[in-house]
Amino acid sequence: MANALVAQSGGPSSVINATIAGVVKANQLNPVYGKVYGGLHGIEGILQEMFYDLTDMSEEENLILRQTPAAALGSCRYKLLRENEADFKRLFEVMEKYDIEVMFYTGGNDSMDTVAALSEYAAKHNIEGRRFVGCPKTVDNDLMVIDHSPGYASAAKFIANTAYQTWQDYNVYTRQEVFILETMGRDAGWLAAAGALTGVVDLMVFPEVPFDKEVFLAELKKHIDEKNKCYIVISEGARYEDGTYLSAAESKHDTFGHAILGGSGEALKSIIMNSGTAERVKVQDLSTAQRSHASEQSLVDVSESFKLGM
Amino acid sequence: MANALVAQSGGPSSVINATIAGVVKANQLNPVYGKVYGGLHGIEGILQEMFYDLTDMSEEENLILRQTPAAALGSCRYKLLRENEADFKRLFEVMEKYDIEVMFYTGGNDSMDTVAALSEYAAKHNIEGRRFVGCPKTVDNDLMVIDHSPGYASAAKFIANTAYQTWQDYNVYTRQEVFILETMGRDAGWLAAAGALTGVVDLMVFPEVPFDKEVFLAELKKHIDEKNKCYIVISEGARYEDGTYLSAAESKHDTFGHAILGGSGEALKSIIMNSGTAERVKVQDLSTAQRSHASEQSLVDVSESFKLGM
Repeated sequence: MANALVAQSGGPSSVINATIAGVVKANQLNPVYGKVYGGLHGIEGILQEMFYDLTDMSEEENLILRQTPAAALGSCRYKLLRENEADFKRLFEVMEKYDIEVMFYTGGNDSMDTVAALSEYAAKHNIEGRRFVGCPKTVDNDLMVIDHSPGYASAAKFIANTAYQTWQDYNVYTRQEVFILETMGRDAGWLAAAGALTGVVDLMVFPEVPFDKEVFLAELKKHIDEKNKCYIVISEGARYEDGTYLSAAESKHDTFGHAILGGSGEALKSIIMNSGTAERVKVQDLSTAQRSHASEQSLVDVSESFKLGM
Repeated sequence: MANALVAQSGGPSSVINATIAGVVKANQLNPVYGKVYGGLHGIEGILQEMFYDLTDMSEEENLILRQTPAAALGSCRYKLLRENEADFKRLFEVMEKYDIEVMFYTGGNDSMDTVAALSEYAAKHNIEGRRFVGCPKTVDNDLMVIDHSPGYASAAKFIANTAYQTWQDYNVYTRQEVFILETMGRDAGWLAAAGALTGVVDLMVFPEVPFDKEVFLAELKKHIDEKNKCYIVISEGARYEDGTYLSAAESKHDTFGHAILGGSGEALKSIIMNSGTAERVKVQDLSTAQRSHASEQSLVDVSESFKLGM
């Protein structure tokens, strides 16, 4: 009986491990493979034969794994380049040595490309009995072809909860308050849009809609004039018409001596402060917490991720 | 039958509203007061007679209120100064007009001082039948006399959860990783210390222990040498021996042209980067989320806060 290999790649989410748990569980219920190996640190570790035997994981461990954020097997940023034939040869060697029939690989667009490259290589070299299965995961929800990606729903839930709760907080005083919540999403506005599930967000800035400073400030002024407050959600990938990220460009625009800080949220704060439209601006960058906050996993998300492995 | 007034002041927490819910519930079970008024925006709104009648709040509303973060009645930063006699006179006028026997006031040290000032004023002017009850609340857990303060446990739980989950995330790659989690706590390290509940934190920086750059960098180097990683929790109030906050002082020390950013976490990042001890440093500032994240309220905390009102 041949074996299976599961591994993880790219940025973590709070539910990737549920897919690994699903693969292990499925083989326990209906043993198709002799062993289910976990490859540590994705391709990077597999090339070094860093394996961990997951075959007989207990039910308790399986349940804990489903609720553990990030990548329990470790991840990598190693890219398997099509022109680097040595890596491909080495990988098929390792698969032969361990009699691995199927490799399940979780990840985003780059990892799915790795799966495609390995399948193409096997087809081209008439290598039989080696298959590659991509298991999509990304919090950004920007994977092509599929309807939605495991990882997104939990991050979206955390963002919506945080948006609603920080909105409650920003609302307590009578003074002027402008609050900016910065979410992930370099090229896709899904995570920022999750903030709108609350119904309390006044303005949103997405990568998909080029940022126009004048239009934005005019909209902001309307909210300030009306209620002296404005709650804004911005995506880290917010950019101008010419493609320049807000986070990269604003230092050139700042002529008032304000320090230019990290991300798009801080850049937007500088734009607002420099324009004089508002005096008090608070920024919260949700950073790593939004993709790893497993204590508020979406049940749908973790179930789908588990079933993906099953 | 005389009436009661409840109001809120100072920075929000995720469980202050439970105290209000407790006061209302107690009077429904055992009616001691005719009306339970909610004063909007603390002293600021009370002076303007901004009241909301909470007496007959439904059970459903009461349950929702207990789980709603921040101050449902609004808060204020208005300080009742002892020398400003006009405010005191006005307040007792309002109490007389609405026949308010007891005023319950939730807040931190400043709000408790307001309660003391009002009690002193009443005693000094022989005003009878007007009482003032302070209900402590603060996420920093720095209130004097009491063992611990409602609001702290929920924030601590959120910080511990976030520390553990971001630690899982920072651990997935084989490359060097330094992670800094910044918590609130201007003068008290309790919130930062909550990160240590996870058992995964390598280094902590508190307001109570003066920051020594050389000692810190030597400790950091040990962790980097040993495992190429270090997980750090720092309090916003971290300071040098002479009392200067890290967040304020570091711009003077930076001679490498690195931008100096907001809080203590970014200041610590600059210190590390400038020293060359590590190359990759990520900062997460938990900001407003830590005090308002009611979706992970501590059950003990919300129960205690409710009972405080009862």
